[in-house]
Amino acid sequence: MSVVVVGTVAFDTVETPFGKRENILGGSATYFSTSASFFTDVSLVAVAGDDFPDEHITFLKSRSIDTSGLQRIPGATFRWEGKYGYDLNDAQTLDTRLNVLSEFRPDLPDSYRDAEYLFLANIDPDLQLEVLGQMRSPKLVACDTMNFWISSKIDALKEVLKRVDIAVINEAEARQFTSEPNLIKAASNIISLGCKRLVIKRGEYGALMVTPDSVFATPAYPLEDVFDPTGAGDTFAGGFMGYLANTGNSDEASVRQAIIFGSVMASFNVEDFSLDRMKRLDYREIERRYKLFKTLTHFEDIGAL
Amino acid sequence: MSVVVVGTVAFDTVETPFGKRENILGGSATYFSTSASFFTDVSLVAVAGDDFPDEHITFLKSRSIDTSGLQRIPGATFRWEGKYGYDLNDAQTLDTRLNVLSEFRPDLPDSYRDAEYLFLANIDPDLQLEVLGQMRSPKLVACDTMNFWISSKIDALKEVLKRVDIAVINEAEARQFTSEPNLIKAASNIISLGCKRLVIKRGEYGALMVTPDSVFATPAYPLEDVFDPTGAGDTFAGGFMGYLANTGNSDEASVRQAIIFGSVMASFNVEDFSLDRMKRLDYREIERRYKLFKTLTHFEDIGAL
Repeated sequence: MSVVVVGTVAFDTVETPFGKRENILGGSATYFSTSASFFTDVSLVAVAGDDFPDEHITFLKSRSIDTSGLQRIPGATFRWEGKYGYDLNDAQTLDTRLNVLSEFRPDLPDSYRDAEYLFLANIDPDLQLEVLGQMRSPKLVACDTMNFWISSKIDALKEVLKRVDIAVINEAEARQFTSEPNLIKAASNIISLGCKRLVIKRGEYGALMVTPDSVFATPAYPLEDVFDPTGAGDTFAGGFMGYLANTGNSDEASVRQAIIFGSVMASFNVEDFSLDRMKRLDYREIERRYKLFKTLTHFEDIGAL
Repeated sequence: MSVVVVGTVAFDTVETPFGKRENILGGSATYFSTSASFFTDVSLVAVAGDDFPDEHITFLKSRSIDTSGLQRIPGATFRWEGKYGYDLNDAQTLDTRLNVLSEFRPDLPDSYRDAEYLFLANIDPDLQLEVLGQMRSPKLVACDTMNFWISSKIDALKEVLKRVDIAVINEAEARQFTSEPNLIKAASNIISLGCKRLVIKRGEYGALMVTPDSVFATPAYPLEDVFDPTGAGDTFAGGFMGYLANTGNSDEASVRQAIIFGSVMASFNVEDFSLDRMKRLDYREIERRYKLFKTLTHFEDIGAL
């Protein structure tokens, strides 16, 4: 089944202790759709300026991503500039230029509106609601957000949470959203707003999923070489939703396995700048790492006490 | 089989966002031995001043802990004062008074010296070496350390690492020890010094175990109520070593299961100040939480792609 993602395409300028790259391909919809494309059909909705080169669109199409929902507007594409220190956990944003993103009014191609899976990447929650209104009867909707919307548009964001099945946010955002330092309490508070499942991304520490009656926790895949964490969260979400759309299931066991596939995809993405690792990734590598992930976390009862 | 632990007994003054307690029972050997006592026989080596009340010794004995190695010296018992913020991950040390600890020269009772399991809790690495020299033929030795010894006694500490089977340290210490921000590389560097296994404690994020040919990662048990993280690391180590001593095994599968039991024990300990939660813990609760831990981390292959 096919997934629609609404988010951004961007030019990123990223500095990590391992190098600096300027004006590289980025954006939540880009990372999400590329990651999901390893599992299912993806249709992308975003806006780009007239400076967005054909090569990036050619790349997305090479992953069989439907780009008919990518609007082109005169002007400059959204730009983000950030820097990471040695711990690589938090980006320091040096510059954000919305450019054409400030004029973005998502208008889904008619062929998208019957899709069963929808991912609302981190954009203005009012636009997330507009997109929700354009979909005819999505089977599973997930959303992301960011600190900026939590502080500036909390009411619209709460409305989004009421209408999605799964929220996928990071740990600091969960705490900020609820002013609650304890993550399990923060998660319960967010779930009480209406979304059925909350997936909390913890960067190099893995992910946590909370529902009204279960908790699932997994570490991240440990890596020797982490070059650039940019896009890891969207890549995680892409693997997660892509896997769910592929299987058509959304029971607890399927969603848990989806989290592992999301983690695997994110672990590849951080191994190089931009989408460079994804560009040279093949599905056998994903399968191999999934198996290693199982070995990594496996323990069994070997002795009753 | 029985475990010998060498470490501290202490009076702690601890402030967390949930309250402040003065002069409560603390110390690495106290936390370790209490936790291990749920799994096996424990013999404690530490030093206390003449201000150390009988009630604490009575408590240790009530857990069947052999306290014949607890030296009593005229003077004041070691004191630590610390404060935690809302994230509860890092203690800010407000005051440390070594008191009688500065005169500590471990001298193991003869009955301890044939023990098969030894845990060298965080004390001066020169003393850890002295204790190692007093043991006749321990089957499994593990050690902890802290930032202070990494910066002040790195050579003695490297000698300790050469002579132990398992090092159990925290994440920041692993990075500090090797000046390597990537945790997997840091772990490999430490293992290359000679210890066979490195267990890295990551607080609320769980634990990671690295050997020359395997990596194991587990999240921590997620809790709604964390009151005081003091002693969590030693409680983890106590459950870990206690389980291994109970089973007599130290193969990969046993050590993985020991990490889970260590995590379970630590999850109880942080639910109250000092050893208050451990004092009212019974083994059925440990078994129940171990089972919940399995559910928490379990995922299975449900659909090939």
